[in-house]
Amino acid sequence: MKPPVSVTITGAAGNIGYALVFRIAAGQMLGEDQPVILRLLEVPQAMTALGGVAMELEDCAFPLLHDVVLSDDPAIGFRDTNYAMLVGAKPRTKGMERKDLITENARIFSAQGKAINEHAARDIHVLVVGNPANTNTLIASANAPDINPANFTAMTRLDHNRAMAQIAAKTNHLVADVTRMTIWGNHSSTQYPDISHCLVDGKPVTDMVSMSWAIDHFTPTVQRRGAAIIDARGASSAASAADAAIDHMHSWILGTDEGDWVSMAIPSDGSYGIEPGLIYSFPVTCKDRSYEIVQGLEISDYSQEKMRKTEQELLDEREMIADLL
Amino acid sequence: MKPPVSVTITGAAGNIGYALVFRIAAGQMLGEDQPVILRLLEVPQAMTALGGVAMELEDCAFPLLHDVVLSDDPAIGFRDTNYAMLVGAKPRTKGMERKDLITENARIFSAQGKAINEHAARDIHVLVVGNPANTNTLIASANAPDINPANFTAMTRLDHNRAMAQIAAKTNHLVADVTRMTIWGNHSSTQYPDISHCLVDGKPVTDMVSMSWAIDHFTPTVQRRGAAIIDARGASSAASAADAAIDHMHSWILGTDEGDWVSMAIPSDGSYGIEPGLIYSFPVTCKDRSYEIVQGLEISDYSQEKMRKTEQELLDEREMIADLL
Repeated sequence: MKPPVSVTITGAAGNIGYALVFRIAAGQMLGEDQPVILRLLEVPQAMTALGGVAMELEDCAFPLLHDVVLSDDPAIGFRDTNYAMLVGAKPRTKGMERKDLITENARIFSAQGKAINEHAARDIHVLVVGNPANTNTLIASANAPDINPANFTAMTRLDHNRAMAQIAAKTNHLVADVTRMTIWGNHSSTQYPDISHCLVDGKPVTDMVSMSWAIDHFTPTVQRRGAAIIDARGASSAASAADAAIDHMHSWILGTDEGDWVSMAIPSDGSYGIEPGLIYSFPVTCKDRSYEIVQGLEISDYSQEKMRKTEQELLDEREMIADLL
Repeated sequence: MKPPVSVTITGAAGNIGYALVFRIAAGQMLGEDQPVILRLLEVPQAMTALGGVAMELEDCAFPLLHDVVLSDDPAIGFRDTNYAMLVGAKPRTKGMERKDLITENARIFSAQGKAINEHAARDIHVLVVGNPANTNTLIASANAPDINPANFTAMTRLDHNRAMAQIAAKTNHLVADVTRMTIWGNHSSTQYPDISHCLVDGKPVTDMVSMSWAIDHFTPTVQRRGAAIIDARGASSAASAADAAIDHMHSWILGTDEGDWVSMAIPSDGSYGIEPGLIYSFPVTCKDRSYEIVQGLEISDYSQEKMRKTEQELLDEREMIADLL
């Protein structure tokens, strides 16, 4: 058995956290041969509820779960940690402008970046789930100058998985038959789910669905899926967000399948003309705990325009929090 | 890849259901080589919420999930199903007597037993989670005369896992070091968590902890754990109950570890002098999709008394619903 690794989860008593921690302890994220120590971080007013989550974790008798550490202090929560999943964030409340949302969260994520810089393992792998995820990632990374910026990523895997599911349903295939989906840009309504390179059963999906279906149905369905789930459940997506977070880390650490790729929001290196340093979702392959952007994809004029639009939104967001970088 | 099997879950939009269905779809219950079709059953007023759960299941793009069927009609929910997890039950409300709780649930579970008898696969494996679980199981089985009664079981695995975790914590060991825990009897406050045969790191735990600790701390902690979690979380245990349900089915279908056993509430065959036919929790080993009661354990006078007391409660419960058997 390998030595245990530490996984820090912020907002661990929230709905996504509750859907996430049990699956990590069961070995679904890092493999069934990898013992874990969970370091669960919460705000002070959620510590009692977090205690209840820890009791339930204990009650599951997970053989891989070696310890659970609870804290409202980032210095403890991030101590020597190998993986961090930053789930907790301030949600947008009624009457709040997007700018307020961004600046309020900027404060949280700059503090967490500093704590990671000071306390975490030097090769920590960070996934930001809390919104606005891309810009929160940028802030956290900027505040952790001693950590490789490539190790700070944001989640667009839920969008990626949703897009795969829509294609599977439309083409009457299993989701396992769908490969090479791409989400470009920001995890927001400007994201661009791109089926140009997507395959179903190894064949181009663009031969199976029309461009007008993609534009008028597929793209808005993926972009607005979160709201549709709130309408049905009366609560926002928690289990599917947690699942996507597990998928993101699993792919990153254990690798992607041969011939396929996944979508991750990562620091742009200028590929496809995207402003370097922006946290932008690209198609990536993963191996040996690192990722590489898929190169050489043909980009149509339509795609180009969509990719620029979501890039522009990220540039605007960066502008709003420039003082924190 | 094996052909898909059907798993029916009742109360699938509830909290335990929400913690359960994603893990089954991810392959944690029946193995990562076993595709599944989920048949989710709910009451009519929960069908909209259930639709939201199904959207999230779709959004996870689980390669093993071949289909999701939603219904409020047991004839559809149990059609040709191979596994059923009966989670939905009427909860005890303020001022309700235990007798009322038992008879109200008896009506639900007799109807489900009839639907299973009429529509399910002949070798269906049934786990009842909804309380009062043991007596609900008895009723469901009695109303499904064409199905082998041995295939109807109730869950005491959460109690079993909780007991293991308490022993691990007390002896400063990992839970993976704890084996041969036993829960006897009813999934209620009369249950008897028995450490007489329990091993830690292969050695008798009775050499490591005192009888007075077991009686005054261990037993009440296990029995009252559910209430302690409600106090902390402000909500009842959902993820740990779902986890125990997965463990129960996983052990039953895929087998128990060599030299270890688990606790399952099953129809008594008279072993240890327990009234035949009662759904009583015993230590069992599992192999080839069936279980066997562990025989020949030495029972102390103290244990005997505890085992009788929980048996008596089950006899009393059976008396209350005798007209439905």
